[in-house]
Amino acid sequence: MVGLDEEEVSVIRNEVLTYAAANGLLMLAASGEVGLVHVPVSLLPAMAVPRKLFEEVRGLAEPFNALVERLAGDPGVIRETLAAAAKQDDFTKSLLDIYTRVLGGPRPDVARKNLAVNRSDYMMDEASQSLLQVELNTISSSFGAQSTVMAQMHKQVLGKFDFLSEGGSGGWFGGEALPDCLESCVPYEDTIGDIVQAFATAVAEYSKSRDSVDAGFDSKSAVVLMVVQDDERNIMDQQILEQELWKRHKVRMVRKTLKEIRDEAVLDGADGILRLASGQEVAVSYLRAGYSPMDYKTDAEWDARLTLEQSQAFKCPSIAYQLVGSKKVQQYLAEDGVLEKFLDSEEDCRNLRKCFASLWALDDPEEPQTKQVIEHAKMNPHLYVLKPQREGGGNNLYDGDLVKALEEEPDLSAYILMQRIVAPIRKSFLLRNGECVEADTLSELGIYGVYLSDNGREIINQCSGALVRTKLASSNEGGVTAGFACLSTPLLH
Amino acid sequence: MVGLDEEEVSVIRNEVLTYAAANGLLMLAASGEVGLVHVPVSLLPAMAVPRKLFEEVRGLAEPFNALVERLAGDPGVIRETLAAAAKQDDFTKSLLDIYTRVLGGPRPDVARKNLAVNRSDYMMDEASQSLLQVELNTISSSFGAQSTVMAQMHKQVLGKFDFLSEGGSGGWFGGEALPDCLESCVPYEDTIGDIVQAFATAVAEYSKSRDSVDAGFDSKSAVVLMVVQDDERNIMDQQILEQELWKRHKVRMVRKTLKEIRDEAVLDGADGILRLASGQEVAVSYLRAGYSPMDYKTDAEWDARLTLEQSQAFKCPSIAYQLVGSKKVQQYLAEDGVLEKFLDSEEDCRNLRKCFASLWALDDPEEPQTKQVIEHAKMNPHLYVLKPQREGGGNNLYDGDLVKALEEEPDLSAYILMQRIVAPIRKSFLLRNGECVEADTLSELGIYGVYLSDNGREIINQCSGALVRTKLASSNEGGVTAGFACLSTPLLH
Repeated sequence: MVGLDEEEVSVIRNEVLTYAAANGLLMLAASGEVGLVHVPVSLLPAMAVPRKLFEEVRGLAEPFNALVERLAGDPGVIRETLAAAAKQDDFTKSLLDIYTRVLGGPRPDVARKNLAVNRSDYMMDEASQSLLQVELNTISSSFGAQSTVMAQMHKQVLGKFDFLSEGGSGGWFGGEALPDCLESCVPYEDTIGDIVQAFATAVAEYSKSRDSVDAGFDSKSAVVLMVVQDDERNIMDQQILEQELWKRHKVRMVRKTLKEIRDEAVLDGADGILRLASGQEVAVSYLRAGYSPMDYKTDAEWDARLTLEQSQAFKCPSIAYQLVGSKKVQQYLAEDGVLEKFLDSEEDCRNLRKCFASLWALDDPEEPQTKQVIEHAKMNPHLYVLKPQREGGGNNLYDGDLVKALEEEPDLSAYILMQRIVAPIRKSFLLRNGECVEADTLSELGIYGVYLSDNGREIINQCSGALVRTKLASSNEGGVTAGFACLSTPLLH
Repeated sequence: MVGLDEEEVSVIRNEVLTYAAANGLLMLAASGEVGLVHVPVSLLPAMAVPRKLFEEVRGLAEPFNALVERLAGDPGVIRETLAAAAKQDDFTKSLLDIYTRVLGGPRPDVARKNLAVNRSDYMMDEASQSLLQVELNTISSSFGAQSTVMAQMHKQVLGKFDFLSEGGSGGWFGGEALPDCLESCVPYEDTIGDIVQAFATAVAEYSKSRDSVDAGFDSKSAVVLMVVQDDERNIMDQQILEQELWKRHKVRMVRKTLKEIRDEAVLDGADGILRLASGQEVAVSYLRAGYSPMDYKTDAEWDARLTLEQSQAFKCPSIAYQLVGSKKVQQYLAEDGVLEKFLDSEEDCRNLRKCFASLWALDDPEEPQTKQVIEHAKMNPHLYVLKPQREGGGNNLYDGDLVKALEEEPDLSAYILMQRIVAPIRKSFLLRNGECVEADTLSELGIYGVYLSDNGREIINQCSGALVRTKLASSNEGGVTAGFACLSTPLLH
């Protein structure tokens, strides 16, 4: 890399390894073991983002939060939008079934106790020099905690090593002119603090409501239930939140798998109180599992999910939020005039629409416009991505696979076709398992939005920090814990 | 353990593992690897200490610091005290040689630029119900950083789990009556902060002195050089200091082995400036190596040590401090009237003497008193420890080995015989490699003292926090990183 010699790279590598170990930028070395390794990271900020564009997408977080809330409160739209996908995709169907059972149950009001840690992901589109939305995550948005630590780490590295600010724009960061105070180029927000503040506020709301009907209620018994996968390796991102929730608010968090919840949690059907075997009451259910069919291996997990949804806990997210995060809904939002149905501010609608990449539903491949775009995609697959409706990543189809699917899939309605954002490729140093490689990389910017509401009463709505994930330009996969991507930060210029 | 069931132990274990991973209570899984495991710890405070005794030994830290400084400034006493041991022990001889060369060199004043992180270790003597000193460490006193984190962790555990404060004195901690607010029983001091404050102050002193003679001096080039072992696994205790020194004071720390210092550091003989290959000047040399003969495999390491001693950097510790920490000097201090030669305050002398265990030099085994104690030790080995002069631990002789050495060693002057402190045995939960065992344990309390002076001008002298190390009662070994002992905290009652 221009401007950094081997010794300098080695110094930064050691600093990064140290910082990661001292500050919880770690994950389990292997599932279930006690050993830890650092999370894959880039040594230095890997994504150049013009400050103006960064502020613009930060400004979208609050309207996106509000939009999700409005959509989630509209069962008609959710059912209609997802009807076709539910026929093709069992997972969407099962989620919709739970949604229907909650709304048809004894306490439909519990469906709208919403806590959200949304994350809207963007890539830089080189052609338009704008940030275009890749997806809006409404469930299990990860790295909220570790992205905060990443920003602190990159600030420290940029501040500590003078050789990084020498040589100016001809240095390690390529062409952009950077200020002398490099630290100021890495944005910092206390995402950890914002998330645990939302948890604590939700627990306080729950306790207030419980206090008002039950004099014997002990607020210490109200906990946040983190729903986890049993083979999770990315434990620290979750556990930093647990630690900080206790440190800052003296609120307890309990971790359980869906299976454990099914086995030991008891829902009082009349009042919707969900109690754990310890006697603790679930004030917030925070799902870091349940977003993928793999998380529901048996009916037990679906039972547990239904139980969570039927409780009067705040849900992060509720089943409605999860459904609203599906790509079908994203595609629906991109249609003319749809945003305006849900948001009052025309300016918000205009701003949100600016970040939408083009999307095409494939429900009716014989419809002339659909037919035309399918033909174009077959001829120009590099300009498109074919995305399954389901969340969780890793299943997007590109290039030859995309052509094959368009030609051979009997029913394309479980997919959407999307404009492929062609992002700039940048040389970065990636650190995985202690090994440092210089590589051509692509980066994706995530902006967190934190939200809390109770049956339409908005309690918190805020933008909360940024995450960058950086992957090899040669890989189409993106998982950090799986080793395909690295955590990074934006460098504003 | 009385009062804790399996589920409760499991909950605490998970909390401790999480806290350790999020806060750097970690060490390398194997030497040189990038994987990390938690440091061995006790789940809960493992040492009961009456608050009054704890305050008493805290009060000894400042006079001990002052005592070490006075002794280190008295070459006659150092040479005389260690003359016999130097004949027997090559390591002591080599250290004394360096000491002599520095004092006889062009700038003997550099020998008295002292920074100390001393740690006085105590055990509870059951017979006298007092804390007796085991040893006074003047070099490489470890766990200053991680002991701070341990105190925070145990405070959190005690505050978070109500079942620990239920059941009162009949609970997990045995017989002592404890207050409702268990957290308040774990003392907390910011040892990390005190140590890095001393480093930063020393760097500022160095820079002031350099500035006054060299207008071109750049204070950013003044660094703390941490001298490390090349196979160190206990890296985090060291690296937390490096991180905090930067975070709190924007002072850089550089790690090098003695070998690397020999290869790349250059000492300007005239002005005593020690420069690294990077051009940085060593303002403080902080030894986390060099305390054991194993650290000096070739002449290169001895050369490096001499270079460090001849520089005008503050030394943590200087060769004189290291020599003063030897057991021969400890034994000398226990002689009648010796403390009074070095300390002005009679009260300080009285208080220090109260914590001395009985010690016997073995220089002349035919001297009647010595002969008598040797005979007594052979008959009652369980009341004695035979300690080699050298530092570093692990070589103390007990029981049969002690008898054998007393009978067979041709020259006993390299050893001292010491009253064996019979400490109370307590059941504790020890966590090593993720595995939790309940065991009979013995604990040792360390009290840190931080000190800074320049040729007798005292700049910092303070007590700075506590460490507890807990080991199986069945083991005579005590190393934490080696897996024999666990970090813990005192519980004041």
